[in-house]
Order: sequence, then structure tokens, then C-alpha cells
Amino acid sequence: MNKNHPPGAQEPVRLRVAKRPYRGKATFLDRWIGSELAKRLAHTNIVLVLWDGAEFGRIGEQGPRVKVQDRAGLFRLILHPQTQLAELYTAGRVDIEGSLLDMLEQGARTIYRNLTPRPWLNRLSRLSWGTPSERRSRRNIHHHYDLGNDFYRLWLDNEGLQYTCAYYPHEEFTLEQAQLAKMDHVCRKLWLRPGESVVEAGCGWGGFAIFMAKRYGVNVRAFNISHEQVSYAREWAKREKVADLVEFVEDDYRNINNRYDAFVSIGMLEHVGPGNYEQLGSVIGKSLKSGGRGLIHSIGRDRPAPLNRWIRKRIFPGAYPPTLREMSDIFEPSGLSVLDVENLRLHYAQTLRDWLARYERHEDTVRDMFDEEFVRAWRFYLAGSAASFVAGSVQLFQVVFARSGWNKIPMSRAPVYAKDPIDQERLRIRSVK
Amino acid sequence: MNKNHPPGAQEPVRLRVAKRPYRGKATFLDRWIGSELAKRLAHTNIVLVLWDGAEFGRIGEQGPRVKVQDRAGLFRLILHPQTQLAELYTAGRVDIEGSLLDMLEQGARTIYRNLTPRPWLNRLSRLSWGTPSERRSRRNIHHHYDLGNDFYRLWLDNEGLQYTCAYYPHEEFTLEQAQLAKMDHVCRKLWLRPGESVVEAGCGWGGFAIFMAKRYGVNVRAFNISHEQVSYAREWAKREKVADLVEFVEDDYRNINNRYDAFVSIGMLEHVGPGNYEQLGSVIGKSLKSGGRGLIHSIGRDRPAPLNRWIRKRIFPGAYPPTLREMSDIFEPSGLSVLDVENLRLHYAQTLRDWLARYERHEDTVRDMFDEEFVRAWRFYLAGSAASFVAGSVQLFQVVFARSGWNKIPMSRAPVYAKDPIDQERLRIRSVK
Repeated sequence: MNKNHPPGAQEPVRLRVAKRPYRGKATFLDRWIGSELAKRLAHTNIVLVLWDGAEFGRIGEQGPRVKVQDRAGLFRLILHPQTQLAELYTAGRVDIEGSLLDMLEQGARTIYRNLTPRPWLNRLSRLSWGTPSERRSRRNIHHHYDLGNDFYRLWLDNEGLQYTCAYYPHEEFTLEQAQLAKMDHVCRKLWLRPGESVVEAGCGWGGFAIFMAKRYGVNVRAFNISHEQVSYAREWAKREKVADLVEFVEDDYRNINNRYDAFVSIGMLEHVGPGNYEQLGSVIGKSLKSGGRGLIHSIGRDRPAPLNRWIRKRIFPGAYPPTLREMSDIFEPSGLSVLDVENLRLHYAQTLRDWLARYERHEDTVRDMFDEEFVRAWRFYLAGSAASFVAGSVQLFQVVFARSGWNKIPMSRAPVYAKDPIDQERLRIRSVK
Repeated sequence: MNKNHPPGAQEPVRLRVAKRPYRGKATFLDRWIGSELAKRLAHTNIVLVLWDGAEFGRIGEQGPRVKVQDRAGLFRLILHPQTQLAELYTAGRVDIEGSLLDMLEQGARTIYRNLTPRPWLNRLSRLSWGTPSERRSRRNIHHHYDLGNDFYRLWLDNEGLQYTCAYYPHEEFTLEQAQLAKMDHVCRKLWLRPGESVVEAGCGWGGFAIFMAKRYGVNVRAFNISHEQVSYAREWAKREKVADLVEFVEDDYRNINNRYDAFVSIGMLEHVGPGNYEQLGSVIGKSLKSGGRGLIHSIGRDRPAPLNRWIRKRIFPGAYPPTLREMSDIFEPSGLSVLDVENLRLHYAQTLRDWLARYERHEDTVRDMFDEEFVRAWRFYLAGSAASFVAGSVQLFQVVFARSGWNKIPMSRAPVYAKDPIDQERLRIRSVK
């Protein structure tokens, strides 16, 4: 797929599209398929355009235009629209005129509206890919997170290098401000006090661990199985002079030991797999002191469904966004009590729009790093994810919990909202930009 | 059980204790049972005392003393401690010296610690009493809520007459202040705007419906199947001059019709039964306009377990506190998205302590209304419930939800905490005390 594809990452062979598509004037069959596709888009103002200029849908309106460049692509599209649109777009065999975001949002709403819940399918898929082993987890994480730190630094915020949902308490916040606000929001929810100990499961490039140490004076032990990220995090902690407070461990969350005042995990649960939730709960239960509490921040669902197949194959192998019901497997058997759940869905939509805008500004650099297909695949992935959050087919849950029956917990959430607007200068962690 | 027992209410025949217990000097067997009971209380400082003065447990310490007055009582206690302690206390065959609250809290912690989760038992019990019909619901509600308005007015707050968990954002709040704060907290979470329409399922004596109308200028349609409560609510609304804004309907939640901007239910879900949750969700889904949202406030659990058998038989027939997992049956199939969950467990502990203190001040009046057994049963029920919330064996969940994919929702919960301290004078709804 790309020149610098990391070793060991899965090439999505089965979804690969043919290189030399056949095309010619659109036939009666082509037009019939076109009109069938348009019927499925009846609730949208998306216009479908064939390679010879034939149009389907609400033609008069100024909606986004999906241009299919060849017959084979059209056939693929009617058979598996959800995966093939992404594949064909990546290969340059489908183009979107007008707003890619708008088109994908309307598409996501249509798909979500027509989704039939199939609980048995979900249970089945838990068996096959819902319980990744440590080895499989390593391969999955390597595929996505070891694409190169330089690549992510192009378009993530340059304060905390956060590859997770930001928090926009104020509409006009920049991505940097919103990521600082997110990290502060999590710390407030955990009522961290100086000198306490925190274990972080899945720490990315270490931005949040460093934030906690610098701004809340806590000791952090942060786990991650991405080698590239851990190396980066260690260097960063040294630069910020908090290496004595933060220890980065290149290991699986399953190997967390010792006891801590707080457990936190931002954007890791999506990779754990529902079959492993009970085990994760048991790891958390064992890692908390009696007054311990925790926060899990994860993409989720209102009702169970596997992640879009293209994303799962091409972008995030093994990823699964759980419902709150499925997340209960973490808390119920382990004697943990849920104190607070916040759904930040629209904040992730805004985060993704901000990432996409920056990404698009750096596409030439990305093209030099990888290739045109990679550029298009990631554009589609970022825009499609934003669309899914806007359409409500995915959620973002922050769940705060403590040991069941522990009473030294805040009576009110008011302190989380005490100082507002947030003093951004106070929160900054980068010594040098 | 009591002189003025409401017609139709179930007499808990099976749990009735013998009237003429046999007693005499404690034998070897009595003492062996006493020491066995004390073993179960090893984590507490509760002392067990037999009728002849024999003591078991940590005798030197100043813990609460449970005095068993006769042999038959002792035998009952070892066989079914959780139900028989309440029964024997009610009958005056067990007395508690020292703090009843302290004794029950320690007991609740012990029970909760030793509780073995039995999911099959829970599933089985859902079949038998987890799906009450409309007729059964009427009987259950009549048993508890139609004991007479005068009885509840003795010890509930005299602002909103709220028989549900209050909210204490400030420790020093009185019960009245905390109930006003609770009602305001719920309205803020629902971001009610003047002129909007609200449907309330299970409205008690109408205090919250009147509050919403007076303080938030909304139109309320409030459902309740307790005849006594509805009559009271209608009179009250007239007195407060909001009869044009609030309509009280003596009917089951299953018969809610029309569409509203908000759905709210405070303290009704406990009586719905998990087998009816999906139907409740469907009623909510149909009752909400496209921009509609809702809040459910209910006692819950960290892990599934039936309510204490004595409470279920004697106090609250048909009641069941669900886990968040079980509550998913309301939201998932009905296309509702959970936005916010808050656990107010410790607030219910405080509410119950406040109720108990007032109740104890009015025990002579209660004795005149009913009899000594009733006085003792309700004292035990209020203290035992406070103890369960302190021990963490029950929770109080407020769940806010909206239609899945609806985006005109607040980005932040900050407005819920915007004005603090709450202007209590502004919130008062009683024209005349």
C-alpha cells in the first residue's frame, strides 16, 4: 500500500482492487445499478455520477457528487458499498466533488438508519477477533501506531501529541487548547492529588503521563506495547525534566503489577476486544489501592455492531467499539462501581475535523513519506470517522469508577467545572515548541 | 400488621413470627449458634447478646449490641439472617442497643462482601416477578404509596414532598434545600426551556411536576397509578395556580401517548421490573419528539442481585434495583443514546438519614396511626436502606439520554454547575407552608 509500510503490518490483500479497470459507455445495466444505488441514498442530496457523465439522485440540488470512474468499481460498489467506497476512493477510482465530510456524514446517517441489529453476529465476531492475545495485540498496535512519529506529528496537536478525542468546553478552542482541556478534564474527574500514584494503560507518545506529572505532581507508571511510542515518550519525559516522576514500560496492560491510587486508560479499550474485558477488569481491580479510582475513555456504541470492515482491515486491525452494556464486563465482576459516564461524541467529531484540516495541509509531505494511495486512505479514514461521530453511529464514553462501597469520593461533580475558562497557560507542558 | 392496613395490600403471611416464643436459660446449642453467628460478624464490632446475658463477638469494644430475646428467634436468625433480623426486630423479639444505623451498615458491608453472584437466580427471578403486569403494578404501588398522605408528610420534606433521593451539593443543606436542589439538578440536566412539554412517569405527590411548571415554565403531563397521590397532586397544583400547566393522569406509564420535548422519571424504574424495560424504552422512544431527551433516576446495583427479601415482601412488593447493564434494555433497542450517568449513592444515604431522624421524632404519631410493629418495621426499613447505600450494596443512578444521532445537545455539563450556591429562595414552590 505504501513505500514505507512497517514490517509485520497486514497488507489488506483481500480488499485490494484491480489495477486495470474496464470502462466504456455506460450500458443499460450500469444505469440500472446507478439508479439502485441512488435509491439507497434517497434521504440524502448525494448525486452519483458515472464515468460517462450519467447522473443519479437529486440532480438539481447542490449536494456532494460521487464520481465512479469505471464499471468494475460500480459493480463493487453495489455489492459492498461500505467497504468498497473506501477502497475505490483510496485507489482513485471514485472521486468526491464537494465536501467529503458532508458526503460521508450523509452516508453514515443512511447506513446507521438502515442498520439491522444482529446480536448473534456480534457474539460470533467476539469469538473470532474479540479476544486478541498479547501477540495479536502487539501486531495490531504495530500496524497502526508505528507508522512513524513524524507522520502523526504532522497533524496531531503539538502540545500533548494526543491521538484521542479532545475536549472543547468552548467552541473557539484550538486543537491544542482542546487537548490540554481534555487532559485536565480527566485529571479533575480522577481528583488527583500531589504525590499519588497513577498507572496508565496505553499511553501513546506519553503526553498525558507527562501532563499528569507536571501539572498534578503525581507519580506515573505508563504501559504501551508500541516500541516507537515508548522510545519517543522516554525522550520527551527527559526533556521535560519529569523522568523521575514518569516511568514508561514497554509491556502489555495484562502485565500491570503493584497498586496505585488511580488507573487511567485513554483510547486503549477499543483495542482490547470484548472477550478480554473481564480480564482487564480483574487487572484494574488488583491494581487499585482501597481508595483507588479509575477512568476509561473509549469509543463506544449505542447498540452493538462491529467496526466498519474497511477500517478494521485497513486502518485498525482488531478494533471494536463497545456499548455500555458490553463495558459492564469490566466493572461488574471486579467489584467496581461506576460513578460517572460522559458521552463526548460531538467532541470527537470536532477533534477529527481539526485533524483532517491539518492533515490536508500536509498532504504533500505525507505523499513524500508514503504514496498517493496512503494519502487518500487516511483522508477518507479521518473524514469518515468524523462523519460517524456526527451521525451518531459511534460514541465517546468517559467512565469514572471506584471500588464498590468506597465512600471517600466527591459528593458532586461541581469541582470538575470549577475554574472556567481553563487557564491554558498554566496547563501547557511543552517547554519548547 | 397494623390497624389501618390499606385494603388490598399483601399481608406478609409467610414471614410472620410466632407470638409466644419459648425461652429459658441458654443451652449449649444456643451458645454454639450464638458463636456461629458471631463468626459471620467477624469483620464488625457488633456484639450478639442472648436473652440470658451471654455475649458473643468482640465483647470489649463499644460496638452496637444485638439482643435476641428468645430461642426461636435465635434459630430463625441463623437460618435466614437477612430476612429474620428485620422480622424479629419488627416484632420486638430482637432489640438493638447503640446505633441502629451503625449496626445495619456493618451488617450490610458483611453481607455484601460475602455475596456470591448468582446470575441464574437473577434470570429466574426476572421470569417470576421481574415483569409485573399493569394489574400487579397497581397492587404493588397501592401497597406502599397509599399508606396515607398524612403518614408521609410527617417525615418527608415539606417543600416538594419528594419520596426519592435528594441532592446535597453542600454538606449543610437541610432536607428541604436538598430536595429543591435535586429537582433543579434534574431540570438543568434536561436543559428545559420555557414552553416545552414534559411527560413524567411516576409523579408521586406531584411536587416535581409543579416545580417544573413554576420554575421552568414547561407544560407537564404526569402519570401515576396511586389514586391517593394523584388526588393530592391535583389539589396541590390548584393551590399553586399551575393547574393550567400541569395535568395529572391516573394511569400506567405504558399508556403514555403524544410526543414531548422531555421524558422524566424519578424513582419509578425500581417498580417497573427488568422484564418490562424494553417495553418502557419503546414507550419512551415513541413519546419523544426528534429533539427530545430524557432522564431516568433510579436505585441500582453494581452487580445484579434481587432486593432484600424482607423489603420486597414487607415494604416494596415487586421492586428491583437494576445494574447499568440491565438498564441497557431500555436504551439500546429503542435508538436512545446515553449522554450522562451520575451515581448519587451517598446522597441517598444522607436523604435516608434525614428521613429517619424526622421519622423518629414523629414515632408517637405513627404509633397512633398504625401500631408498634409498624413503627419498628419502618424504622428498620429506613435505617436499613441508609445502611445499604453507605455500604455500597445499592446505588442511585441518574441517566440522561437523547435520540441516537441527535446533535442539538449541550457540548458540556458546565451549565448544570453554573450557578452555585443554588438560590434556594428562587426555587421554592410552596406558596404556603
